[in-house]
Amino acid sequence: MGISMHRIEIPTIMEVDSNRLVHVGSYIERAGISNVAVFFGEGIRDLFGEVILDSIQKKPSLNLLNTYDYDDIRLESLISIAFTLPKNIDAIIGVGGGKVLDASKYIAFLNNVHFISIPTSTSNDGFSSSGCSLIIDGKRTSVQAAMPFGLIVDLDVIKNAPAKFIYSGLGDIVSKITAIYDWYFEEHNHKAKVDDFAAMLARKSVNSIVRMPYTDITEKYFLKEMVDSLTMSGISMEIAGSSAPASGSEHLISHALDKVVAFPQLHGIQVGVATYLMSLVQEHRYERIEKFLSETGFFDYVETLGMKADDFEEAIDFAPSIKVNRHTFIHVEENRLKAKMLLRENDILRRVLK
Amino acid sequence: MGISMHRIEIPTIMEVDSNRLVHVGSYIERAGISNVAVFFGEGIRDLFGEVILDSIQKKPSLNLLNTYDYDDIRLESLISIAFTLPKNIDAIIGVGGGKVLDASKYIAFLNNVHFISIPTSTSNDGFSSSGCSLIIDGKRTSVQAAMPFGLIVDLDVIKNAPAKFIYSGLGDIVSKITAIYDWYFEEHNHKAKVDDFAAMLARKSVNSIVRMPYTDITEKYFLKEMVDSLTMSGISMEIAGSSAPASGSEHLISHALDKVVAFPQLHGIQVGVATYLMSLVQEHRYERIEKFLSETGFFDYVETLGMKADDFEEAIDFAPSIKVNRHTFIHVEENRLKAKMLLRENDILRRVLK
Amino acid sequence: MGISMHRIEIPTIMEVDSNRLVHVGSYIERAGISNVAVFFGEGIRDLFGEVILDSIQKKPSLNLLNTYDYDDIRLESLISIAFTLPKNIDAIIGVGGGKVLDASKYIAFLNNVHFISIPTSTSNDGFSSSGCSLIIDGKRTSVQAAMPFGLIVDLDVIKNAPAKFIYSGLGDIVSKITAIYDWYFEEHNHKAKVDDFAAMLARKSVNSIVRMPYTDITEKYFLKEMVDSLTMSGISMEIAGSSAPASGSEHLISHALDKVVAFPQLHGIQVGVATYLMSLVQEHRYERIEKFLSETGFFDYVETLGMKADDFEEAIDFAPSIKVNRHTFIHVEENRLKAKMLLRENDILRRVLK
Amino acid sequence: MGISMHRIEIPTIMEVDSNRLVHVGSYIERAGISNVAVFFGEGIRDLFGEVILDSIQKKPSLNLLNTYDYDDIRLESLISIAFTLPKNIDAIIGVGGGKVLDASKYIAFLNNVHFISIPTSTSNDGFSSSGCSLIIDGKRTSVQAAMPFGLIVDLDVIKNAPAKFIYSGLGDIVSKITAIYDWYFEEHNHKAKVDDFAAMLARKSVNSIVRMPYTDITEKYFLKEMVDSLTMSGISMEIAGSSAPASGSEHLISHALDKVVAFPQLHGIQVGVATYLMSLVQEHRYERIEKFLSETGFFDYVETLGMKADDFEEAIDFAPSIKVNRHTFIHVEENRLKAKMLLRENDILRRVLK
Repeated sequence: MGISMHRIEIPTIMEVDSNRLVHVGSYIERAGISNVAVFFGEGIRDLFGEVILDSIQKKPSLNLLNTYDYDDIRLESLISIAFTLPKNIDAIIGVGGGKVLDASKYIAFLNNVHFISIPTSTSNDGFSSSGCSLIIDGKRTSVQAAMPFGLIVDLDVIKNAPAKFIYSGLGDIVSKITAIYDWYFEEHNHKAKVDDFAAMLARKSVNSIVRMPYTDITEKYFLKEMVDSLTMSGISMEIAGSSAPASGSEHLISHALDKVVAFPQLHGIQVGVATYLMSLVQEHRYERIEKFLSETGFFDYVETLGMKADDFEEAIDFAPSIKVNRHTFIHVEENRLKAKMLLRENDILRRVLK
Repeated sequence: MGISMHRIEIPTIMEVDSNRLVHVGSYIERAGISNVAVFFGEGIRDLFGEVILDSIQKKPSLNLLNTYDYDDIRLESLISIAFTLPKNIDAIIGVGGGKVLDASKYIAFLNNVHFISIPTSTSNDGFSSSGCSLIIDGKRTSVQAAMPFGLIVDLDVIKNAPAKFIYSGLGDIVSKITAIYDWYFEEHNHKAKVDDFAAMLARKSVNSIVRMPYTDITEKYFLKEMVDSLTMSGISMEIAGSSAPASGSEHLISHALDKVVAFPQLHGIQVGVATYLMSLVQEHRYERIEKFLSETGFFDYVETLGMKADDFEEAIDFAPSIKVNRHTFIHVEENRLKAKMLLRENDILRRVLK
Repeated sequence: MGISMHRIEIPTIMEVDSNRLVHVGSYIERAGISNVAVFFGEGIRDLFGEVILDSIQKKPSLNLLNTYDYDDIRLESLISIAFTLPKNIDAIIGVGGGKVLDASKYIAFLNNVHFISIPTSTSNDGFSSSGCSLIIDGKRTSVQAAMPFGLIVDLDVIKNAPAKFIYSGLGDIVSKITAIYDWYFEEHNHKAKVDDFAAMLARKSVNSIVRMPYTDITEKYFLKEMVDSLTMSGISMEIAGSSAPASGSEHLISHALDKVVAFPQLHGIQVGVATYLMSLVQEHRYERIEKFLSETGFFDYVETLGMKADDFEEAIDFAPSIKVNRHTFIHVEENRLKAKMLLRENDILRRVLK
Repeated sequence: MGISMHRIEIPTIMEVDSNRLVHVGSYIERAGISNVAVFFGEGIRDLFGEVILDSIQKKPSLNLLNTYDYDDIRLESLISIAFTLPKNIDAIIGVGGGKVLDASKYIAFLNNVHFISIPTSTSNDGFSSSGCSLIIDGKRTSVQAAMPFGLIVDLDVIKNAPAKFIYSGLGDIVSKITAIYDWYFEEHNHKAKVDDFAAMLARKSVNSIVRMPYTDITEKYFLKEMVDSLTMSGISMEIAGSSAPASGSEHLISHALDKVVAFPQLHGIQVGVATYLMSLVQEHRYERIEKFLSETGFFDYVETLGMKADDFEEAIDFAPSIKVNRHTFIHVEENRLKAKMLLRENDILRRVLK
């Protein structure tokens, strides 16, 4: 019989807790890795370089082949560095924010070696997914690399990152609600087949956090729940073989904003606002989203940013052309009209957008 | 480089929704299966046989090789039927409760063909896991088979199953809280290494439902959340390569009860009571568990059953010997004393146990 | 995109050379195994028990949980032993001929643990394949287990096994020529789809040995080539997901002989004669087969056994009914007539059969 | 238990026979592929474009998204084309010689889509392996891509390719003898661990052809054996996770020649001569190699090329520095002296090199 089970790959190293950085060397050694290079994002080596490099150099079985300070996501820059790496390398470790993680993830992919992801802020699910956002021929482009082999998140670090990164993470995680609804909408319209396991993981990832009690969004258990949720979101895309379980019309609006405005906000911030908007359009679970984004302080924070309703309006019109093969709510003209009307009439949106 | 990613197998067919039984044939055909046999539990063919068999026979590419009414989990009976199955079979479909699912799952395993699980009640996570409970040499024994290739849960069927099955499912799902805590306790004592991804899935599975608002435990979205949670629990064991993420001291007490009392209750009922007890012993999240088991009506239901505190006391003493290789809270004498004291002093336990 | 590569599993430990038994412990330890049980075939412990058990007990990281002397391939016997094995076992090691390897391979499968195959004679490709031949309800039955995790063949042991086992191995390996031809014949008649990679491996396995120069069939390099060829034959079946690349009409005749005669010869002996016969029927590469079986002394050996042409005649008629789903040369009546005529007219067959 | 079997990936489509090009569309459709682009090497579209494109366009379920004429292996060129491919592509088909196969294989890898390899000449094992030879920063560099998903070799096409490609294929396949011997030499010196299964495949690949009788090297069965052998060689590297089973000191000499001479010969031609030389140095199976390369006409062909002993001498000195992490025979000074002496003293080498 030739029909096989659905096999998926998940990270071998997965450590999400306080005080993880001092153990980086142990986690890597235990997983059977020997030869590594470390890429730090801009300014990251000063903050965390010593503790991480020490933990590696203390292990006699590990060889630290090289270290880099690197934040450049232009493909031509990546290429020229990628093929100068030592041939005997086993894994590349990326430490920092979205850019260095994307860059080092792709350099690992080009060398066919493992990637170990150590995010210092978790503003979206990129740290745990196979996708990268690179600049190719001057344009921001999403490309596929491989799932991280390892994922090490130190909650003390995440807690101390600027608040905007936590808000952005929350905005990204809440977007699973509208994204999944878009996916089932596509299935209903015979434009896609939902992978039920991927949808289930994505749904659990958001439901477990939006229903969680907490007193402060920087408390450890809340942050752990957020990081776990973003991780599961990343894995749900791997299982689906597409970004559909984690990215729907709200992500298209954010991608459109990136092209429309001169200085885009953090991805998850834009996505969070667009999620609330689209949940109203979908008429699906908008009370839950409103409650969550209000109580966490997300909306209050957005109010300080000066984002403009006019830009959202332009982005809404532009959004369907970002992914012409999809058929989310925003691909239907009537829903775009409804969305633009809501921008002017919904009390919260009027408050947080200028 | 010879270090590979962690690969796991997940069900290829996964359908959890209302009105699924009429589509069984479509799901199987779409997955590339051709030749099937169907095993019904006792009395199940009368209830659901026609709709399922019709959906299969309507598909020209499917061959229904045979059907069985079967509820016998004695190994010698399974063996004698297993090797009479047609050689060209692709998959075995089991329909019903725990016994027929365990029996047909193991028959599929012995034939090295796929298993498709169609539970008509979801009183524990057996419908979505690789484990079976068989009778070998007269003794109830846990054995490993393979993960189901397909999982089809019709929520209309689950909704109409007797309430005790839903309570049992809830009792089983809430047990992840104490089980995971036991697992970290073992890691802390250097007796086990927690698989963080498995622990995360198990934790998300329980957290998403215990925090969920609902008005009635038989409403569709609540049942779907429960079934999804039990499914994720089953998969977390697959990932861990052991039952640890889903089964700790509370399961040991239930297994011990099975040996101690003449007529054991449903697995999840026993487990639910033991979970509350052990959460008090662990002093970890017992308020959450108490709230959930109270509000869902679980405790009220248990009160009607006449379970005895004396039996629990005996089971507590017996529990550690069920799995001598483990080191959960119940393996520590002091905790057993505490547990036995709580049986007599905790108000809820005094109410629900005689 | 959901179309995935064809993934196959191959043994992790593979050691085929002189003087391997003293290193059994090292091979197992290096592969990450800790807890093992050893099954010896009848009389095998006296010959090789000490060296193997010593090599295991010398390694501090290995635990020898139990040893058995076992040659019973009746399913009910296997079952009753299978579920008494210690729960923490990692791998079962089988040492000996076909029976103990089949028995211990299936016991490993029932426990879902790895199997390490240490054949002391290599009379067919069973030592390297996932299939077992068991006695179920009194009848010899082929069942599927799992591919061996490890394969350790000590050529000094193979060299000193009685000559009949080497002849049997040669008879089994040469059968790939007629088996592959039967498979393409089925494809040509739209009764099967050949897996080209599996066919290629099976073809290379036989071609590399039938064209090999040697002075004595017990010389090391010739035996190594034979063992490697039988191993590749076992793996070709794993890849194909069926026995087709390694087993055609010649195997059906041998299976039929097993039922027709009171005291069947070794599997590979019967298969070798049937291969020569079927190559004449197929009119395909019979000179090569004749040359190989003559020069190695296979035919001279067969001549001493007193096998009967009448039994072959009966087996030829019976052969197609062994596997009614297949459509090999022997399934065509005209070819059966031709085969029976050749039994009486071909000089070599008249010489070796009475 | 967490120790898993060794899993390898092999091509899903594998078709090696006469008259395959007309069926390309069928093979692709049957494998579940829908959307493809075709890359033709220089001049290849005129020869085979019509038959291949027709076979694709005839299939209603296949979409031919684009076609390219492409022979450029500079990384920057590949990159700029790679990310302009349509997003919905399933597979890239490469048709032609080494350059277009390397280029399109890497473009497929960068897009994370399947690669289907249709070589029109088989001068080395690149058509069936995951490696590519690209020009990066002006230098020829070996990089890893992924195993081909499909492999379609039309033997009529191979037969009609210029003879030099066949000689080059033979030179590459015979090199497995010295390569495997180098690998065991490294193991003996504790510089590597041989993967026995990979070594076995590589050994079978060469042994089956060097021992094969034939009357003309362009006869179908001989060419099929050669293509199968090169395919197995490609797969042996995949299994080993390195090029070691297929590439030893003889390949290092050829790589060195590429840097030393202005106009290098075909890879397999250089490798074949170096294989003979190194087998003399290793004092291992040189008679077999001499016989094979003499009888096939390889040496006679080489004699016409004007290759220079002085260049080989320089290449021998340079060879060890090509891969400093390895420890083959050529890495030992004494063997380099011996090799250089043999260049001047061996009759055949004196005849074929100037």
